[in-house]
Amino acid sequence: MTSYKNLESTMQKMSSVQHALSILNWDTSVMMPEGGARQRAKTMGDLRVLLKEIITSSQVDEWIEQSQQESLSDWQKANLRQIIKVRQKMTSVSSDLLTLQAQAHSECEMAWRKLRPENNWSDFLPYLKKVVELAQEEARQRKKNSKMSLYEGMMDLYSTGTSEAQLDVWFGELKTGLKDLLPTILDIQSQQKRVTWDHHFAIDMQKSLSQEAMKVLGFDFQKGRLDVSLHPFCGGTEHDVRITTRYETEDFTESLMGVLHETGHALYEQNLPEDWLGQAVGESVGMGVHESQSLFFEKQVGLSPTFLSLLYNKILMNFQLDPKEPKWNFDNFVRLLHVVEPSYIRTKADEVTYPFHVILRYEIEKGLFDGSVQVEDIPSIWDEKMTEYLGLSTQGRDNEGCMQDIHWTDGSFGYFPYYTFGALLAAQMKFSMKKENTELESQWQQGDLSKTKDWLKKNIWSWGSYYTPIELVKQATGEGLSTSYFLQHIRDRYIQPYL
Amino acid sequence: MTSYKNLESTMQKMSSVQHALSILNWDTSVMMPEGGARQRAKTMGDLRVLLKEIITSSQVDEWIEQSQQESLSDWQKANLRQIIKVRQKMTSVSSDLLTLQAQAHSECEMAWRKLRPENNWSDFLPYLKKVVELAQEEARQRKKNSKMSLYEGMMDLYSTGTSEAQLDVWFGELKTGLKDLLPTILDIQSQQKRVTWDHHFAIDMQKSLSQEAMKVLGFDFQKGRLDVSLHPFCGGTEHDVRITTRYETEDFTESLMGVLHETGHALYEQNLPEDWLGQAVGESVGMGVHESQSLFFEKQVGLSPTFLSLLYNKILMNFQLDPKEPKWNFDNFVRLLHVVEPSYIRTKADEVTYPFHVILRYEIEKGLFDGSVQVEDIPSIWDEKMTEYLGLSTQGRDNEGCMQDIHWTDGSFGYFPYYTFGALLAAQMKFSMKKENTELESQWQQGDLSKTKDWLKKNIWSWGSYYTPIELVKQATGEGLSTSYFLQHIRDRYIQPYL
Repeated sequence: MTSYKNLESTMQKMSSVQHALSILNWDTSVMMPEGGARQRAKTMGDLRVLLKEIITSSQVDEWIEQSQQESLSDWQKANLRQIIKVRQKMTSVSSDLLTLQAQAHSECEMAWRKLRPENNWSDFLPYLKKVVELAQEEARQRKKNSKMSLYEGMMDLYSTGTSEAQLDVWFGELKTGLKDLLPTILDIQSQQKRVTWDHHFAIDMQKSLSQEAMKVLGFDFQKGRLDVSLHPFCGGTEHDVRITTRYETEDFTESLMGVLHETGHALYEQNLPEDWLGQAVGESVGMGVHESQSLFFEKQVGLSPTFLSLLYNKILMNFQLDPKEPKWNFDNFVRLLHVVEPSYIRTKADEVTYPFHVILRYEIEKGLFDGSVQVEDIPSIWDEKMTEYLGLSTQGRDNEGCMQDIHWTDGSFGYFPYYTFGALLAAQMKFSMKKENTELESQWQQGDLSKTKDWLKKNIWSWGSYYTPIELVKQATGEGLSTSYFLQHIRDRYIQPYL
Repeated sequence: MTSYKNLESTMQKMSSVQHALSILNWDTSVMMPEGGARQRAKTMGDLRVLLKEIITSSQVDEWIEQSQQESLSDWQKANLRQIIKVRQKMTSVSSDLLTLQAQAHSECEMAWRKLRPENNWSDFLPYLKKVVELAQEEARQRKKNSKMSLYEGMMDLYSTGTSEAQLDVWFGELKTGLKDLLPTILDIQSQQKRVTWDHHFAIDMQKSLSQEAMKVLGFDFQKGRLDVSLHPFCGGTEHDVRITTRYETEDFTESLMGVLHETGHALYEQNLPEDWLGQAVGESVGMGVHESQSLFFEKQVGLSPTFLSLLYNKILMNFQLDPKEPKWNFDNFVRLLHVVEPSYIRTKADEVTYPFHVILRYEIEKGLFDGSVQVEDIPSIWDEKMTEYLGLSTQGRDNEGCMQDIHWTDGSFGYFPYYTFGALLAAQMKFSMKKENTELESQWQQGDLSKTKDWLKKNIWSWGSYYTPIELVKQATGEGLSTSYFLQHIRDRYIQPYL
C-alpha cells in the first residue's frame, strides 16, 4: 500500500470515530437519561483522545512526508492538503495548554450560567480574562511560521482563507449600506398595521408542519430524522443527518424557521459526494459555506413571499385557521415574519440588523488578538458600538450585552464572522441562480425546488472540500464574495415592494 | 505508571469504544433511518477493528507480562485475569479465519432469511455446513494448549468454566425430572377451564403498564430507557441501560413478560459496582449469570401468583377491564399465563418445556464438535429428539425444527446451554432468598422488592467478574448449581397447588 493509501485508511478510521462521536452527541441532547451524563462525558472524552492519537501518530507524519513524493491525482492532492490541515489543527496546540483550557472553559461556562442572569460582569471578568489569555496563547502556538495574523489563525479553525483585510472591507460596506437602508425600512414598517396572534399551536401539528416543510425543501427522511432538543442543531452523519428543534405552543414561527435553517445544513451534508465519504476532502468546506446553506433555505427561500405563500396555505390547513380573520390574513402573516427591529439579542435579530451584531463582535475579537482591546473594556466598547450601530445602549445591562453569548466562555473566537459570510453568500447564490432561471421564486411557490437544488448540488454540495471556500464562491457564482447582493436583497424585500 | 496501571487505562479506552458501539447498536435498532445502514455498518466495523488494535498491540502484551511481576491487590489480580481473558478471546483466532467467517455468516444468514420461510433445508445445508466447518476451525485455533474440549472452548466465549461433563449431569437430571413431571402437569392443565381474551390493548396503555412494572422491579429511569424495536434486547451502558420491546395490540402479555425479562438484565447492569466501571473485572460475569437475572425477574418473580396479583390489579386499571367478566377473572389470568404445552418453537416455549429445546440443541452442538454428528443429519436427529422429549415430530417441517433459530447462521455455537444454566440459577437463588426471608413472595405482592434486590446486590450484582460464575453461585447460594431447585420450583408452581 502506498503511503497516501495509508492516509486514506487513517481518514476512514477517524471518520468512523467521528461518526460515533456525532451520534453520541445527538443522543446526549435528545435521548440520554440524566444519570448517563458522567459516563457519557468520559466516553466522549476518550474517543476524542483516540481521534488525536490516530492523527498524531509518527507513522502518519511519515506517510504525509512520503506521499508528497508519490504521484497523486488532483483529487488525491486535494485530499492530502485537507489531511495535512486536519493534522495541523489537532497537533499545533500543546497538551499542557489544552488541559489548562479545558479547565478554564468549564469554569468560565459555569460562571456564565450563574452570573449572566445576575447581570454581574465584574465577577465574570476574571474568568473571561483567563479564557482570552489562553486563547491568545493558543493563537500564538497555532501561528508558528504562518503568515496569518493571530486572529486569522483562530478564524481558520472554522473556515479557511478569510483575511481581516477582506472582512474589514465587507463589514465596512455593510455598515455603510445597512445604516443607509435601516431608517427607511423602519419608517416603512412603522406605518404597517400588524395584528399579533394569540393562539395555541398544538405541538404534534407543528411537528407535521415542520416535516412537511422539510420534505418540500428536499430533506431525505430515509437518511435523517427530526427530533426535539433544548438547543436546535444539525448533527449525525452524511447518510443519517439529524436535526432538532424545540416547539413552543404560543408561536410556531421560531421553530419552523429554525427547522428550515437546520434543513439547509442537513441538505448540504446529505448531498456531499457519495464516493468521497470518509475522506477529508469529502467533508463540507467550513462554517462560512455551511451557514450560507442554512441561511439560504431559512432567509432566501423561507422568508421569500412566494415560499411564504406556500407555507401559509399549509399553516392554515394544519392549524385549521380562518383566513378571513384579520390576524390570519396572508399580508399580516408576511408582515409578522418580516419585522425588522433593532434589538439587543443576536439570536433573536432579523436579517437586516443581524450583521451589526456580528460586526460588533468581530471588531472586539480582532482587538483582543491585536492588543488594541482589553477584556476589561468590553462592556464600554459594546455599549458604544451598539449605540452607534443600532441606537441601543447596553450600559448597565451586560446580560443583554457582552454577556449574552455562550461562545466566548469556551474560547470560540473567530466564529461569529462566518454567520455574515454565510448571509452574503446566500444572497449571492440566489442572484446567481436567478440569472440562469428567472422562474426561480415562482417555482418555490409551487413547492418545486428541483432547479434550486440542482444548482446547489452542481456548484456547492458535490465539491466537498475540493476547493477552498474562496475558490468555491468564485467557481459557483462567477465572482468573489460581495456585499452588493445581500444589500440588494434587503432592498428588494424590505423597501422595493413598499415604494 | 506501572504496567498494570497502563492496562487499566487500556481497559478504560476499550470500555469507551464499547460504550460507543453499544449506543450505536441501540440506535441502529431503535432510531436510525434505513438509509443510514451502510455507513453505520462501516463505522461499527471500524470501531471493532479499533477495539482489537487496542488490545492486541505488542505494548499490551509487555504490560501483561510485566504486571505479573508487580505487587497487586486481590482485586487487581482479578482484573488482570479478566484482561488476559479479554485479550485471549480477541487474539486467538487468525484474521484470515475471521474474514472467511464474516463472509460465510453473512451468506448463511441471507440464505436462512430466504430459505426458512420456504422450509428448504437442502438448499440451506451447504451454507450451514460452511459455517460449521469454520466454527470447528475456530474452536481448534482457540483450543491451543487449553485442556478444554473444542466445544467447551466455544462455550467459554459466553461464560467461563462450564464443562461438558457437568452439563451432561444437569441435563440428564432435567430430562429425567421433567419427563416425570410433564404428564402430570399436562393432565392437570387439560382439566382446567381457560377463557381466552379477545380484546384490543392500546399501545400507549401497554407502554405505561410496562414502565410501571419496571419501576416496581427497581429499574432506574434516571439511568435507562424503554423503547421499541423489532427484536427486544437490553443494551446501552451501566449508567444508561436501554431495553426494548415490541407491542401487539391483541395481546399484552408477551411484551410485558419480555419487559420483565429485559428488566432483569438491566438491573444487573445498572447495579454493577460503581467504582469498577470501565475495568474488565467490573463487567457482568457472562451469559449464564446474566440469564439468571432476567429469568429470575421474568419467571420467578413475574409469573409468581403473588406478583401476578399485583400486576393483575394494574392491568385491570390500565385497560379498564371488568373483573366480573369470566375472562378477566384473576384465576383465569393466572391460568393463561401458566399454560404449559409442548411446542415446536423455542422462543415461544413455557418454562417447563424450554429446557428440552436447549438440551436438544446442546446435544447436537456437542456432536458437531466431537465429530459424532454430521450437519447433514441434523434434521433427522432433531426430529428424533423432539419426538422423544416432547412428542412432536419435525419431519417435513424443518422451518419449525432445525431451521427455526438464527443463532447458528453466524456461528454462535455454545450459547444455548446458558439459557438453562440461567433458569437453574434463578430458581436456586429464589430458594436461597427464601431461606433468609420467608416473607419474600408476599413482599412481591405488595410491590416491595427491596429485600429481593438487597440479596441480589449483595450476592451477584456487586461482584462484577471478580469471581468466576461457578464460584459466584457457591458464594451466593452456599452450594454448587443444582437442578433440584428448578425441579422443585416446577412442582411448586404447576402441580402442588392442584393436588
